[in-house]
Amino acid sequence: MRIAVDAMGGDYAPKEVVEGIQIAHDRYPEIEFDLYGQIDKVKPFLKNADHITLVQADEVIAMEDEPVRAIRRKKQSSIVLAAQAVHDGKDDAFFSAGNTGALLAAGLLIIGRIKGIDRPGLTTTLPVLNNPKQDQFLMMDVGANADTKPFNLYQYAIMGKYYAQTVMGVKNPRIGLLNNGTEADKGDMAHKAAHEFLAGVRDINFVGNVESRELLNGAADVVVTDGFTGNAVLKNTEGTALSMLKLIKNGIMNGGLTSKLGAAMLKSTFKGIQSQMDYSKHGGAVLLGVKAPVIKTHGSAKAETIANTIGQIKAMLENHSVENVVTYFSDHSEEMAEAKAEMQK
Amino acid sequence: MRIAVDAMGGDYAPKEVVEGIQIAHDRYPEIEFDLYGQIDKVKPFLKNADHITLVQADEVIAMEDEPVRAIRRKKQSSIVLAAQAVHDGKDDAFFSAGNTGALLAAGLLIIGRIKGIDRPGLTTTLPVLNNPKQDQFLMMDVGANADTKPFNLYQYAIMGKYYAQTVMGVKNPRIGLLNNGTEADKGDMAHKAAHEFLAGVRDINFVGNVESRELLNGAADVVVTDGFTGNAVLKNTEGTALSMLKLIKNGIMNGGLTSKLGAAMLKSTFKGIQSQMDYSKHGGAVLLGVKAPVIKTHGSAKAETIANTIGQIKAMLENHSVENVVTYFSDHSEEMAEAKAEMQK
Repeated sequence: MRIAVDAMGGDYAPKEVVEGIQIAHDRYPEIEFDLYGQIDKVKPFLKNADHITLVQADEVIAMEDEPVRAIRRKKQSSIVLAAQAVHDGKDDAFFSAGNTGALLAAGLLIIGRIKGIDRPGLTTTLPVLNNPKQDQFLMMDVGANADTKPFNLYQYAIMGKYYAQTVMGVKNPRIGLLNNGTEADKGDMAHKAAHEFLAGVRDINFVGNVESRELLNGAADVVVTDGFTGNAVLKNTEGTALSMLKLIKNGIMNGGLTSKLGAAMLKSTFKGIQSQMDYSKHGGAVLLGVKAPVIKTHGSAKAETIANTIGQIKAMLENHSVENVVTYFSDHSEEMAEAKAEMQK
Repeated sequence: MRIAVDAMGGDYAPKEVVEGIQIAHDRYPEIEFDLYGQIDKVKPFLKNADHITLVQADEVIAMEDEPVRAIRRKKQSSIVLAAQAVHDGKDDAFFSAGNTGALLAAGLLIIGRIKGIDRPGLTTTLPVLNNPKQDQFLMMDVGANADTKPFNLYQYAIMGKYYAQTVMGVKNPRIGLLNNGTEADKGDMAHKAAHEFLAGVRDINFVGNVESRELLNGAADVVVTDGFTGNAVLKNTEGTALSMLKLIKNGIMNGGLTSKLGAAMLKSTFKGIQSQMDYSKHGGAVLLGVKAPVIKTHGSAKAETIANTIGQIKAMLENHSVENVVTYFSDHSEEMAEAKAEMQK
C-alpha cells in the first residue's frame, strides 16, 4: 500500500502535512508514503524518513489558482506529479489538503474516471447527533458538479452505497434523496425523475426523500443530492453550527461572573459537543468515481486530522472501495446504458 | 385596516389563533379582524369580540390535504373564504397558520398575482447572529417554486428589496445571490446567468454571490435563491440549530452534578441564545408577488407568535409594501419584458 501525498497543499503545509504523515506512519507502519513537494522546504520537518520517500516537485498550485488551467500549465506541481504517479500505478491513492478544484481536476483528467461513470462526485461524512444508533452519514455530491442530471444521482447512489459498506461499515446502507419534502412527488422536475428512478433500482436500499432538517438526526446513511444543493447544505450546516457555538461563547463572555463559573463547570460537556461536531475525525472528502482513492482534507487541517485521513484511505484500499465500484459498473454496463437512454427521453 | 384570519389553521387552532388575535387586538386596537371558521368551535375561545367578527366557514382544509385540489373543492373552507374576501376588497390581508401549500394556492389562484410578476415567491426572515450591525436577513424564495428560472430571481430581488425597506426598515438593502462560491463565475448555468443579470440592474444594491456558510453572519440583507435550494437551506438551518441545542441539553443531562450546576448558572445565557434563534418573533413567511399581504406562520405557532405576525402584517399595510411592488412593476413593464426576452434567448 503506497500513498501519494501532496506535501505542499494546505494552509499549514508543508509542516502539518509532514507531521501528520509521521503520525500516520506510527499508526500504520505497513504503509509507504511518497511525499511530492519542494524537497528543501519539506525535508526540515521530516524527523523519521522510514517508509517515507520525498519526490521533488518544482511547482506549487496555490489555493487561488484557477484549477483546470493550473493542472494543464503546472506540470511539475506536487498535485500533477502525485496524480500522475497514481495514474501510472506507482502509488495507490492520492491525498491533498490543497486547492480542491485542482485536486478534482487532477482526479478527473489525470487519474481518470471509472468506465461507465459519467460524473464522479465529491462526498463527505457528517456527524449524526443525538442518535445512539448512528454516528455519521455520507452526503454526495457536495460540489464536484454544479449542473447535475437525474441519471448522475443514480450513479451517486451506487457509489455511496459501496463507500458506506466498505469504509463506514454499514451492511445495508439506507440511501435517501435530498428533497424539499418526504412525499414521493416532491421536488423540481429533476428530483421527481430521480426519485421515480431510484425507487425502481433493485441494488440499493432506497428509503425515499429526506429533508435537510432531518440529516443530522440520521435520516439516511447515504444522502444523494446534486452538487449545487449538496454544497449549499454542507456549508450551511458548518456555518450554522459555528454560529451557534460562537453565540454560546459570546453569551458566556458577556454574562458576568456567574455565567463564566457555569461555563467552567460545563467545560468537559462543551468539549464533548465540539468533538461530536468535529467531522474531520471521520477523514476528508473523497472524489468517488475515479480509478483510485482521491481524498481532500480541509485546507486548515493540522497533523492529527491529516493522520485520520490516511486511516480513511487505508480503509478504502484494504476494503477495495474502488474495485467494488469498477466491478459493479462493468457488470451492469448494459442496464446502465438502457437506464440512461430511458431517463434522457 | 382589516385582516382576514384563518381561524381553523394550525396545530393548536382554533384556540391559539383566537388567543393570538386577542393579544394583537390589545396591541393594535385600530385593526379590524374577520375570523373565518366554524363558529361553534371558534366562539368558546373568544373572550372579547371587540373589533373581531366571526364569519362561518363550514369546511376545513387539513394539513395533509393536497393543496390545489383542496382550494378547488372546499369552496366553503376558511382558507378559500378568507382569500375570497381579500380578493373582493373586504379584507386587506390574509393570515393563516394552516396548510402552507393551500395558502400559496389560495394566494395565487384567488387573490392573484401582481401584474408583471411571473412567479410569486415565499420569503422568510432569519436571525443574524454575533453581528452588532444586523439582526436579521430575508431569504426568498424558500419554497413556493421548485423549478425556477434566472429571470424569476431578478423579480425576487426587486420584491425582496421593497420588503426589506418597508418592513425591516433597511434603507438600501444589500441583495446577495445564494451560490456555491463568492466569485462571479460560480454556480450552475442558471446561477451564472442570474449573477450576470443582477449585476447589471440599476435599481438594486447587488453585493454579488453569498455562500450559505455566511448567511447567519449577515452576508446580505436580502438573499435571493431558487425555491429548491432556499427550502433546503432554510430547513437545514432549523435542523442544525435544533440538533445543536439538543446536543447541549443531552450533554448537560448526562454530565453529572457539576454539569447540571453549571447549566443552572448559565440558565439566563441559554435563554438569551434561544431567544436570538427564535425567528418567529420576526413574524411568519410572506408570499410576495400577490395583490395583498398573504402571511403564513408555523403550524406549531402559539398565541404570542400569532400576535407578532399580525404586527408584521400591520407594517406591510401601513408602509404600502404591496403597492410599492405594484408601482415598480407597472413603471418598468417594458424594461421587464425586454429583460425577460433577453434572458430567455
